[in-house]
Amino acid sequence: LDIGGANLKAADGSGFAHWHPFALWKESAQLTQQLRTLIAQSPRHDHLAVTMTGELADCFGSKTEGVSFILDAVRKASDGRHTRVYLTSGQMVTPQVAMRRPLEAAAANWHALARFAGRFVPEGFALLIDVGSTTTDVIPLVAGQPAAEGLDDTSRLMSRELIYSGVERTPLCAVASELPYRGAMCPLAREHFATTRDAYVILGDLPEDSLSLDTADGRSATRVGARTRLGRMICADNQRFNHRDAVAIARYVAEVQRDLLFEGIGNVIGRRGKPLTAVVVSGEGEFLAVRAVQQLDPVPRLISVSQRLGEGISRCAPAHAVAVLAREAALG
Amino acid sequence: LDIGGANLKAADGSGFAHWHPFALWKESAQLTQQLRTLIAQSPRHDHLAVTMTGELADCFGSKTEGVSFILDAVRKASDGRHTRVYLTSGQMVTPQVAMRRPLEAAAANWHALARFAGRFVPEGFALLIDVGSTTTDVIPLVAGQPAAEGLDDTSRLMSRELIYSGVERTPLCAVASELPYRGAMCPLAREHFATTRDAYVILGDLPEDSLSLDTADGRSATRVGARTRLGRMICADNQRFNHRDAVAIARYVAEVQRDLLFEGIGNVIGRRGKPLTAVVVSGEGEFLAVRAVQQLDPVPRLISVSQRLGEGISRCAPAHAVAVLAREAALG
Repeated sequence: LDIGGANLKAADGSGFAHWHPFALWKESAQLTQQLRTLIAQSPRHDHLAVTMTGELADCFGSKTEGVSFILDAVRKASDGRHTRVYLTSGQMVTPQVAMRRPLEAAAANWHALARFAGRFVPEGFALLIDVGSTTTDVIPLVAGQPAAEGLDDTSRLMSRELIYSGVERTPLCAVASELPYRGAMCPLAREHFATTRDAYVILGDLPEDSLSLDTADGRSATRVGARTRLGRMICADNQRFNHRDAVAIARYVAEVQRDLLFEGIGNVIGRRGKPLTAVVVSGEGEFLAVRAVQQLDPVPRLISVSQRLGEGISRCAPAHAVAVLAREAALG
Repeated sequence: LDIGGANLKAADGSGFAHWHPFALWKESAQLTQQLRTLIAQSPRHDHLAVTMTGELADCFGSKTEGVSFILDAVRKASDGRHTRVYLTSGQMVTPQVAMRRPLEAAAANWHALARFAGRFVPEGFALLIDVGSTTTDVIPLVAGQPAAEGLDDTSRLMSRELIYSGVERTPLCAVASELPYRGAMCPLAREHFATTRDAYVILGDLPEDSLSLDTADGRSATRVGARTRLGRMICADNQRFNHRDAVAIARYVAEVQRDLLFEGIGNVIGRRGKPLTAVVVSGEGEFLAVRAVQQLDPVPRLISVSQRLGEGISRCAPAHAVAVLAREAALG
């Protein structure tokens, strides 16, 4: 299980992967029931392995409070099943131990994923780039092992190993300060009117989903809805703002976000001063990672988790990773 | 009445001014009742004069839909009172006429305020700067009359006469891309975790208000709450993130926002190429306007609406303006 602030993900490490959006910061009281349902939907659920990032959700006054709340929900939902929690030290511990080491249980999913990804590149210096809905991880791998500089989120932001930007939930006003409109640049509305998902739905990089209301205005994640939201970013009415206008803005946003990721990657590589063997890409934003990596010179070997293991697993990569690591640990 | 997307404001043009937060995009069904209460609280309410910006709220599919919804709520709440709506052309028209000219009724409050402010500077080239919770208007005044380049919001963004940034509701991730933390700069979380209000509450520029939950996490607008929210911007836990850390971030945000406004002012002045006689400042963010204007060389004469007419009127300046203009129009 990978318990995030905006999504719940489950995988069994053998091909099953499932996720659904869950706004933890709005509906935290529902977490236990949501986890129970998710566990019941999974084909093999006698053992549970847990990682999380949801403790940062702003319904919690502190990370310790968040970790404690999430572990409590896991305990209730587990109904007595054997449960292990992944720590940033790489250990799998009981929920009781994790409760006493909350800042190691916090935001540990990237570490599990990096350890798993290392097996694709057992030699040399490589990177894992996981682009999610909200954040992106850029983790150095040395001889197949995670070699991150930062462990907690603040250090990871500083080292650029965590880039707080993703392909769905990132507010457009946090990515750009102006947007193209009919041949000129227009300063944008500093308001949560649209997100990166709108740009990628317009461009066809992400699918339309008329049932998903996880958007800035709570309306459908369709192209029509995305166009209205993108127009609002420059206070344009959709009576005037057409599809071509939306495409221009979407292309610009995609370029800015690619360049932002490229810059972060350069920063992480630059500190090492070693040639890059390969890059493992995963997450629902694999497409963005590929575009950023292709800007590197020379272009390193690309290993796509979605191509190797399927799109579902790529999207739930940390859940898959923690399931695989837990089984291996159990088998000794 | 000045009907915004986040606040409702009322003034009678003779000293009464009242406002309260109202999240139109979340509770639009309550608008009629809210207006009815607001009208009942006002000392003189036989005639109504209305201006708005709330039509941009993202509960509306288009501005026309928004204007129509708001005018309909006004009609119901007016209970048959004589009602006029301000248009960006400077005319006061009946709600029926405004319904047919929705794009002139949309976002006209700055125009009413600029016309009113012109009486403080009847000669030469001056500016009105109104810094609100969400947006800022920078309107040129020539011989006491508004001389804006843009009329609709998109053109106004382009001409920098509208700067979509204010002292309460602006997401911090839309103002900066990194924040100072213990001697270094930390890339921030591109998430709606904190707003400019948190920075100004920490600095003492805005008052604490433990009853106000109009914040990024829906918790109190106190210094303690603000510190937690500011810490979250760099994923720092409030067990580690102290008041001094919060002050460093708040100061930085205040400077960035002041510079942003200074740049916008420079843009608006630059196009005219005329010496600036004076600047009229208003709004709950007068303090920020003053700081930006003091960066100009030479510093122009400053006319503070709060000093002349009181803080309440400064904060509800467009409502006061439209009330004064309506009375004058009625008296011929």
